[in-house]
Amino acid sequence: MKPIKVGLLGLGTVGTGVVRIVEGHQSDLQSQVGSPIVIERVLVQNKNKARSIGISPDKLTEDAWDIIHDPEIDVIVEVMGGIETTKGYILEALSRGKHVVTANKDLMALHGPEILAAAHENGCDVLYEASVAGGIPIIRTLVEGFSSDRITKIMGIVNGTTNYILTKMSKEGAAYGDVLKEAQELGYAEADPTSDVEGLDAARKMTILATLGFRANVALEDVDVKGISAISREDILYAKRLGYEVKLLGIAERQDDFISVSVQPTMVKASHPIASVNGVYNAVYVYGEAVGETMFYGAGAGEMPTATSIVADLVAVVKNLKLGVNGKQAKLAYKEKKLKTDEQIASKYFMLLHVQDRAGVLARITQAFAEHEVSLESVLQQPNPSNPEAEIIIITHDANKAAASRVLKSLASMEVVKAIKSVYRVEG
Amino acid sequence: MKPIKVGLLGLGTVGTGVVRIVEGHQSDLQSQVGSPIVIERVLVQNKNKARSIGISPDKLTEDAWDIIHDPEIDVIVEVMGGIETTKGYILEALSRGKHVVTANKDLMALHGPEILAAAHENGCDVLYEASVAGGIPIIRTLVEGFSSDRITKIMGIVNGTTNYILTKMSKEGAAYGDVLKEAQELGYAEADPTSDVEGLDAARKMTILATLGFRANVALEDVDVKGISAISREDILYAKRLGYEVKLLGIAERQDDFISVSVQPTMVKASHPIASVNGVYNAVYVYGEAVGETMFYGAGAGEMPTATSIVADLVAVVKNLKLGVNGKQAKLAYKEKKLKTDEQIASKYFMLLHVQDRAGVLARITQAFAEHEVSLESVLQQPNPSNPEAEIIIITHDANKAAASRVLKSLASMEVVKAIKSVYRVEG
Repeated sequence: MKPIKVGLLGLGTVGTGVVRIVEGHQSDLQSQVGSPIVIERVLVQNKNKARSIGISPDKLTEDAWDIIHDPEIDVIVEVMGGIETTKGYILEALSRGKHVVTANKDLMALHGPEILAAAHENGCDVLYEASVAGGIPIIRTLVEGFSSDRITKIMGIVNGTTNYILTKMSKEGAAYGDVLKEAQELGYAEADPTSDVEGLDAARKMTILATLGFRANVALEDVDVKGISAISREDILYAKRLGYEVKLLGIAERQDDFISVSVQPTMVKASHPIASVNGVYNAVYVYGEAVGETMFYGAGAGEMPTATSIVADLVAVVKNLKLGVNGKQAKLAYKEKKLKTDEQIASKYFMLLHVQDRAGVLARITQAFAEHEVSLESVLQQPNPSNPEAEIIIITHDANKAAASRVLKSLASMEVVKAIKSVYRVEG
Repeated sequence: MKPIKVGLLGLGTVGTGVVRIVEGHQSDLQSQVGSPIVIERVLVQNKNKARSIGISPDKLTEDAWDIIHDPEIDVIVEVMGGIETTKGYILEALSRGKHVVTANKDLMALHGPEILAAAHENGCDVLYEASVAGGIPIIRTLVEGFSSDRITKIMGIVNGTTNYILTKMSKEGAAYGDVLKEAQELGYAEADPTSDVEGLDAARKMTILATLGFRANVALEDVDVKGISAISREDILYAKRLGYEVKLLGIAERQDDFISVSVQPTMVKASHPIASVNGVYNAVYVYGEAVGETMFYGAGAGEMPTATSIVADLVAVVKNLKLGVNGKQAKLAYKEKKLKTDEQIASKYFMLLHVQDRAGVLARITQAFAEHEVSLESVLQQPNPSNPEAEIIIITHDANKAAASRVLKSLASMEVVKAIKSVYRVEG
C-alpha cells in the first residue's frame, strides 16, 4: 500500500487541525481508503516558530514551490488563504497532475469556474467543502444529496461573527458597537471586521452555494450585499415584539430559471427553523421543489470543524485515486445564468417610519403604498414617547423590490415623514 | 447516449413520486449524467387500477421476475416494501449484475450486511439513502461528509408519526389516544400503528444509522426499544414545566469503541436544537469528536421527499456506471461490534414518584439513590392536589443504567413509595 502524500499549504489554525485529524484518525482513514495518508511537506511562514503540534522540522518549508514542484506529492491541501498568489500555486499544482483540497472561499467565489475548468482539463479533483459553513457538508448535500431535485431557495447563516453579534444583541439588548468590541476580544471578530460585518464574507459563500444549487455560474458581483453595522437595538426590539429575529441571511432564489442572490439583515419569523440558530453556529436552509424544507446546522468555522471537511475531501480524493476517476465528477455549471430584475425579486418588507403626529398622516402614507401597488399585511401606529413624532410600523405582503423602492422614494419625499428609520426584508 | 433503463418494483406513493421526478426532471438529470434515464418496466399489484400518473400500460407487469430477468434493465428501484420475498428479488437482481436503489429500511436493518456483501461480490451498487429520514441525505452525510471524523453520538427523530403525536400532545395538552386517532384519520398513522408507536420503525432506522456512523454491523436486536404509548399528558406537562420537551429519540452512542443503541421517549432540554423539531418532520443530530454538534432537518416521509433521495441514489448509480466503478465504494463495516453493558450506558434520568405525605419520606428516598451512587441534580417535592399522596420529581446527574435500575428496584420495594409514575432518559 503506497502511501498517499499530501502537501499542506499553511499551518495556521485550520492547517493544524488537518494535521491533528490525519495523524489522530490515521487507522480509521486507512481502513476507508486502503492506504496510509501522510502529510509529507508543510508550507509555513516561519520555520522556527513554536507550534502546538509536534511536526518534524524536515517537513517544513517557507517556499511553496518546494511543495508544488515535488513530484512525490499527490494532493495539495490549501489552507493558507489569499487570492492571486494562491491561485497561481493551485493552477501550477493542477498542471502537474496534483489534486487540490481547499478551504478558500475567496478564491472559489472569485475564480471557481477557472480553477474547476483547469482541474477538469488536467484530470484532477478540486474539492472545497470547507469553503462554506465549516463542518457542515453542505456542498455534498447540494451536489449529490439533491442531485435529483430542483432547488428553488437557499437561505444561509454562513457567517459566525455576525450571527454571534446579532444573537448577543437579541438576547441581551446590547448595542452593536459594544458586542462587536466584545467579539473582537474573544477572537470571534477580526481587528478589522469589515469583511464579516459588511456581509462580504457571506456574499462569497453565497456565490459558491448559488452556483452549486442552481448549476449556473453566479459571480460575486451578482450578489446584492448589505451588512449589519446599521442595525440598532430598537430594530431588534421591534422585531422581537412582532415575533421575529433579525439575522444576516444570504438568500439565493430561483424562479423559472431566473435567479437572485443577496446578503442582508432579515427579519425571520421566530417559528422558522433558521431563526433559532444562535451564536457562532451556521445553518443552511434549502428548499427543493420535491424535497420541500430542509436545514443543515453546525459549526461554521474553527480548527477542528473546518479540518473535518478538509479531511473528508481528502478521503474523497484518495478514493477517486484508487478508482482512477479523479477529475471526472467535476461539478461544472451547465445552466445559463439569468439574473432577476428588481421587478422579479419579491419579498415582504418591514418598515419603521417616524412621522408627524397629526390627522391624516396614516392615510397619506398608506396611499403611497397603494399607488405603487404594494399591499400591506399589518400597520401599527403609536406615539413615540421620546419625541413629538409618531412611529409607524408597516409589514407588507410580498412586494417586488422595484415597487418597494418606489414606495420608499415617495415616502422620503413627503413632508409628514420625518425619517425612514429602518427597512428590512421579512422571511417566514 | 444509450439510455439507462430502470425497473421499478412498486408503484405506490413513493414509486409514483419516483416516476414524477424521473420524468419531470429528465433534462436536468441528463445534464448531470450524460444519458437519458428511462423507467422501463414497473411492477404493480393490479395492472388495471386507475393511477394519478400517466404511464404506458405496456410498461406495467404483475410479475416481478419479468423485471428481474429482463437483460435490458440496468438498475432496480425497489419501493414495494416487504422483507423475505423482496430480499429474494434483490439478491437475484444483483446476481444478474443489476444495481439496486431501495427505500426499504426493514430489509436493510435486518439483512443489510448480506445484501451489501452480495452487491460487492457482483460489482454492483446498493444504495439506500431513502431508507432513513426520507428527504434528508443523512446516509451520505455520515459516510462521506464525516468520513474523516469519529462520530460519538447520533440522536434521531426518525419517525414522523410519533413526532406528530408528541408535538400535538405538547402543544395542545391532548391525550395520547385522542391524538393517535386524529393522526390515523389524517393518514399520518397506520390503522395498526404498532410499528410506529412502539418504536420498531425508529429502531430499524437507528440500526442503519449506527452501522454507518460507527462502521460496525449493529443488528436490530442490539437496539433497546421503548415506544410512546405509555406517555401521559402529565408527563408532558411536567417536562414542559421543567424546560423539556418529550421526544421519541433514537440514540446511538460510542465510547472507546463500545456502543449502545436505543429508542425511547426522552426529555430533551428545550434549548437543544432537536427539541424544536415538530410535527411530521425528522431530524438527525450528529456529534463528532472533531466537527462537534451538527443537525440535519427535513421531511422524513412522503411521496416527493422520499423520491428525491431515491432518484439522487439513481443519479449516483448512473454516474458510477459511466465511470465504471459500481460496487467499488461499498460502505462495509470494518469495526468489530462491541456493545456497552448496562454499567457503561450513562444518562440523566427524570423520575416521578407518588409517595406517602409524611415526615422522613424524602430522606429515605434520597438515601436509596445515595446507596446506589446515583447523584441528584434536582429534587422537587409537592403535595398532589388530587390525592393524599405527595409527588416527588427527581432529575439525576449522569447515572449508569444498571445503577438506575437498582435504584428503581429499591424504590419499588419501599412501603412509602406508592407508585413510580414515570421514568425518562434526559438529554441536553
